[in-house]
Amino acid sequence: MRKLNCWIAYDEQCDFSIYNIPFGIFSTKSKSPRVGIAIGDKVLDLAGVAKQGFFDSIKKLDKKTFSQATLNNFIALGKPTTKKVRTTIQKLLSSKSSKLQDFPKLFHKMSSVKMHLPVHVGDYTDFYSSIEHATNVGMMFRDPENALLPNWRHIPVGYHGRASSIIVSGESIRRPKGQIMPKGASRPKYAPCRLLDFELEMAFIIGKENQLGNPIPIEKTEDHIFGMVLFNDWSARDIQKWEYVPLGPFLGKNFASSASPWVVTLEALEYFRVKGPIQKPAVQSYLKCKGENNYDVNLEVYIAGEKQEDSMVSQSNFKYMYWNMQQQLAHHTVNGCNVRVGDMLASGTISGKDESSYGSMLEISWAGSKEVTLKDGSTRKFLKDNDTVTMKGYAEKDGVRVGFGEVRSKVLPAK
Amino acid sequence: MRKLNCWIAYDEQCDFSIYNIPFGIFSTKSKSPRVGIAIGDKVLDLAGVAKQGFFDSIKKLDKKTFSQATLNNFIALGKPTTKKVRTTIQKLLSSKSSKLQDFPKLFHKMSSVKMHLPVHVGDYTDFYSSIEHATNVGMMFRDPENALLPNWRHIPVGYHGRASSIIVSGESIRRPKGQIMPKGASRPKYAPCRLLDFELEMAFIIGKENQLGNPIPIEKTEDHIFGMVLFNDWSARDIQKWEYVPLGPFLGKNFASSASPWVVTLEALEYFRVKGPIQKPAVQSYLKCKGENNYDVNLEVYIAGEKQEDSMVSQSNFKYMYWNMQQQLAHHTVNGCNVRVGDMLASGTISGKDESSYGSMLEISWAGSKEVTLKDGSTRKFLKDNDTVTMKGYAEKDGVRVGFGEVRSKVLPAK
Repeated sequence: MRKLNCWIAYDEQCDFSIYNIPFGIFSTKSKSPRVGIAIGDKVLDLAGVAKQGFFDSIKKLDKKTFSQATLNNFIALGKPTTKKVRTTIQKLLSSKSSKLQDFPKLFHKMSSVKMHLPVHVGDYTDFYSSIEHATNVGMMFRDPENALLPNWRHIPVGYHGRASSIIVSGESIRRPKGQIMPKGASRPKYAPCRLLDFELEMAFIIGKENQLGNPIPIEKTEDHIFGMVLFNDWSARDIQKWEYVPLGPFLGKNFASSASPWVVTLEALEYFRVKGPIQKPAVQSYLKCKGENNYDVNLEVYIAGEKQEDSMVSQSNFKYMYWNMQQQLAHHTVNGCNVRVGDMLASGTISGKDESSYGSMLEISWAGSKEVTLKDGSTRKFLKDNDTVTMKGYAEKDGVRVGFGEVRSKVLPAK
Repeated sequence: MRKLNCWIAYDEQCDFSIYNIPFGIFSTKSKSPRVGIAIGDKVLDLAGVAKQGFFDSIKKLDKKTFSQATLNNFIALGKPTTKKVRTTIQKLLSSKSSKLQDFPKLFHKMSSVKMHLPVHVGDYTDFYSSIEHATNVGMMFRDPENALLPNWRHIPVGYHGRASSIIVSGESIRRPKGQIMPKGASRPKYAPCRLLDFELEMAFIIGKENQLGNPIPIEKTEDHIFGMVLFNDWSARDIQKWEYVPLGPFLGKNFASSASPWVVTLEALEYFRVKGPIQKPAVQSYLKCKGENNYDVNLEVYIAGEKQEDSMVSQSNFKYMYWNMQQQLAHHTVNGCNVRVGDMLASGTISGKDESSYGSMLEISWAGSKEVTLKDGSTRKFLKDNDTVTMKGYAEKDGVRVGFGEVRSKVLPAK
């Protein structure tokens, strides 16, 4: 990768290097929600950058696009344009003679801005594409000898989730109440969830729609993917267990899902492509893809009790996914289903082979049969009230780092 | 019910009587999509009615609301306002001295306008609330002795569907392709769906949001329901069967769902309330409701082969539903899940006790074991290419008729 300088100083461990330039929506006390990019520990106001004329050479770029409260219209400009915006920003930040240096007020300290959900999500889909996770769940809930269901190696299994309850990092969630069937009981009870869990996921965001009835061929799927975020698919295991047969998860999931605020583009992740696992048996023709289609993104999950510091409980990697994003999107649309700009498609829990890489408390505590000890000496099988869960993710190679920041949310007690 | 006259003539069998006044979005060659109501075989342009000042006495009513391409902003005005708009229209249409008679150009022949999807659907949920349907499916796919799963009488089982692929009556659907596991085969194949089906449903539309984390108590649910439409939840049975374990229906459903264009308000349906089935065992406290919470709406399904006339294949009624809309909405939000104006919540297939009232070909043909003969002598187990499926619905009592019109769509061959 060509070395780029940056006149904004940041340290080596910074997620938001000059190689990244992720897009998000921020506001300040005096600025309404608008498009920005993250660089070091700063947020650059793109509405302001556009106003100063720095994007004037980019055709078909309405400056108002940057003053909107979601990225949807920006993303909808299309990759040729959004790529130009990104590379223009890289140039502005790396050239020592950059005139952008004359506008220090366009930069805000990241700690001083409020971040918003980056996109309006039309539809949200959740896959189930980690073979380790699906196997672990199958062993616990069904048959250890036949943990993977017959369709799993043929289909990137997925289901529709709730778009309305996707929130941004920093917003708290409330422990849900619902119906739970206690072991050995003859009837369910209505009570607060006792087995509250996170799921470590990543989600990709659609950048280009297809028309209803027109599948996206697998070789064109990347044209339709704008970028990615970290994603915590909160799960109420006891509610889910009682409700999910035969139509799948519903109230066990739809009380909230949390996304990180900075959308890292596929272009920024390009350098971190790796081969995925070998798929056996061979997949159907419409799911066959060439080359390196997984991404080497280190993932970490932390839990902190109230007023305690973060304790790492999982260390996983997005490269473990059995089904890749191209396959997920080709499958999703093979029946003609249409996707729209801003739609989120999440990976499903990302677990690795080792216990230390499991992406949910369900797996880490093996359905509550063992405890995890945090730094403060307290233990967890599932999440307690006032716990804060943080997920981090970053790709790193040859001194180049492209990170996602974090998705962080606190669990409030049930009402 | 107080008798109302109407100076627009229509016959007794007309769905769009003065007692109805359903809202929809229509356009003509010269008029962009806007809000209208149906009366007899006419569509009344409410943007025009507002412009002429007929709504001037209604407070907080921005006239621009009627010039929009969805009903969302109109619905979001809230029931006190939307009810006033409806009763004002009833008065304008029933008073013999009505000045609206001076504006014949505000009325369009229904056959001359184009109807659009009435709302922007943020999230779409599909329930499974007919005990007859759930029992029939359980008998066919699982165990005839234990057809209903243990949770069914405790939970209005539901799942999230696809909002992007909801289309309006009149738009064709395309037979989906996908993975199918042939009986006795060792691996699935990729092929056009062979078991294409309709599902006779009704859907209600959210009229008022709740905040994430704040359930809607059952006694307040009706404040959040604006009205209803007919709904055809197209289903690819062979794709669904192979994919649906363990996370529920996905590509077997999300290629299309069709809705009728006229939203009939809860107020118009008030006169047709009836008691629902007795629920045993007793439901959880948060699902307990008083009074008559089902609606007596006659439902019919027709199939027509290419260039053939409609043959009725089912005659059902919305009053058969085991779980009512109040319970569905209370359940949906009991975990704090938020709903938004325009969200659609569909009933699930509405089947009755008799074979003649089954709401899907899956049940009518009993999983393909018997045929239905149409008027032209042709037979069906599932849907053929170029078939047109039409669903109709109307409530009728003491000479008062409130109908939904129809949802009608043609099945195009797979690409």
